[in-house]
Amino acid sequence: MPRVVRVGAAQLGPIARNEPREAVVERLCTLLHAAADDGCEFVVYPEAALTAFFPHWYIEDPRELDAYFEKAMPSGPVNRLFREAAERRVGFYLGYAEAAETANGRHHFNSAILVGRDGSIIGKYRKVHLPGVDHVRPELPFQNLERLYFEVGDLGFPVFDAFGGRIGMAICNDRRWPEVYRLMGLQGVELIALGYNTPLFNPDADQSPELRIFHNELCMQAGAYQNATWVVGVAKAGVEEGVHMMAGSCIIKPTGEIVAQCKTSGDELAIADCDLDACNEGKRSEFDLASNRRPELYGALVETG
Amino acid sequence: MPRVVRVGAAQLGPIARNEPREAVVERLCTLLHAAADDGCEFVVYPEAALTAFFPHWYIEDPRELDAYFEKAMPSGPVNRLFREAAERRVGFYLGYAEAAETANGRHHFNSAILVGRDGSIIGKYRKVHLPGVDHVRPELPFQNLERLYFEVGDLGFPVFDAFGGRIGMAICNDRRWPEVYRLMGLQGVELIALGYNTPLFNPDADQSPELRIFHNELCMQAGAYQNATWVVGVAKAGVEEGVHMMAGSCIIKPTGEIVAQCKTSGDELAIADCDLDACNEGKRSEFDLASNRRPELYGALVETG
Repeated sequence: MPRVVRVGAAQLGPIARNEPREAVVERLCTLLHAAADDGCEFVVYPEAALTAFFPHWYIEDPRELDAYFEKAMPSGPVNRLFREAAERRVGFYLGYAEAAETANGRHHFNSAILVGRDGSIIGKYRKVHLPGVDHVRPELPFQNLERLYFEVGDLGFPVFDAFGGRIGMAICNDRRWPEVYRLMGLQGVELIALGYNTPLFNPDADQSPELRIFHNELCMQAGAYQNATWVVGVAKAGVEEGVHMMAGSCIIKPTGEIVAQCKTSGDELAIADCDLDACNEGKRSEFDLASNRRPELYGALVETG
Repeated sequence: MPRVVRVGAAQLGPIARNEPREAVVERLCTLLHAAADDGCEFVVYPEAALTAFFPHWYIEDPRELDAYFEKAMPSGPVNRLFREAAERRVGFYLGYAEAAETANGRHHFNSAILVGRDGSIIGKYRKVHLPGVDHVRPELPFQNLERLYFEVGDLGFPVFDAFGGRIGMAICNDRRWPEVYRLMGLQGVELIALGYNTPLFNPDADQSPELRIFHNELCMQAGAYQNATWVVGVAKAGVEEGVHMMAGSCIIKPTGEIVAQCKTSGDELAIADCDLDACNEGKRSEFDLASNRRPELYGALVETG
């Protein structure tokens, strides 16, 4: 039985700081319906896809900060996305800021969920590789306060059986770390969904936008090839509250080749038929990880401070 | 004090099966002198640079097989290379087949050495990621019998202080494994020298030469960027005893960009000034491995069968 999943990389243009959830969900649903009309059964949205990427600013007012976080998923305006996706039989990956109530208080994560074609949540991932810092740097044109606003994810790097294959998730800066792809590769991942919010300019480094776009693709392409998996990388793009964001959402084959890519910096779909069996060749030969890795010699990879 | 090392990637064209060591060393010395004339202080030769790449054939006669291995380094015709390199004050990386006598018998490795500008051996690496199989497959146009002829390297992934910086080594198929770059990255590597003998056609996979060249560069560029290190990849190229080999020897910056590359499939030098301080930006920011990795979550990377 063929295992072809038609996937839509649903890039978003900027979200204004004062844009209500309802308006964002309207945009997500517009992309959803366009994807469904084109036969997609899985749509990948960006990281933190429900709001502006608020770690770019220091938010002093705790109530204002709290408003960026989802306390339940789905809830409020987001229910509409779940309902319409289930009606259209389209599953999705959605990145969002998560406030989790636990026995020992409230915890904040930069999270993503995998939702099945019936609208049920199949799995969750919480971002591990938080970039940025935990304090304000007033000299910068914009901040990256992910380490102030979020905790390091505590769910590991799980993969889930879905869409006839094995699906993994990663978020933004995770994609620069080969460990992330490998930890999912070792679990037989066949498609990694990955949303990002990445400035085109790094205030701390002398990197042209072209170089940063090259790095974005390089890491995802290498991760795909070296683990024989599809990778679907999806941007929040355009100029968001003065921050120029990288576009270039793309779908990458297990050979590392880009097969579909967004051309604009706005709301846009890139669509590809992802044959999960295209992973088999690599997984059985060059990247047969069980036969070809030498983990007994890799001890230093897991040594801590 | 600037730490600029002028490096020559000394690509070789094919070596005939019956080509004597003296003739090969003559070619190595020709490249050495051209590099020295151009101001190089470090030259990188390919994997198994002293002979044809014999794992491509099944060799039944044990004496014939034994003749491909070096029993001492340097010895015989190779002494000339060491002597002329020391005279010109040029250090080098040299790949060769090593027969090592130990208390428990003779062992065979696919090895590389790092030689200082004074002609002394600074360090050795023995290839860990042996590709191919350990038995003949008569249906193939050529073999890859590395797992028959060599043992898995037993020296780990060492780095060495040399040429004013920290130098690491890898060999051929090692370059496809992000673990290799990372294990050296964790030791602060600033330049990885890497020789390869890679067929342009894979008898086991439907891969065009263009795709295989893309994979070659993709892995080395990602390894360079993700560890903020220079990578110098050097081919044995051309048609060697009927096997079409990949060329494209190149020098890659810590940003992952290729800054020099061979254009032919023959003996050729690609030269670049490698500023080891160009590693600093990446090592202090994005790829500050001590701050930005999460090894406590990477346990599965070292789990064995």
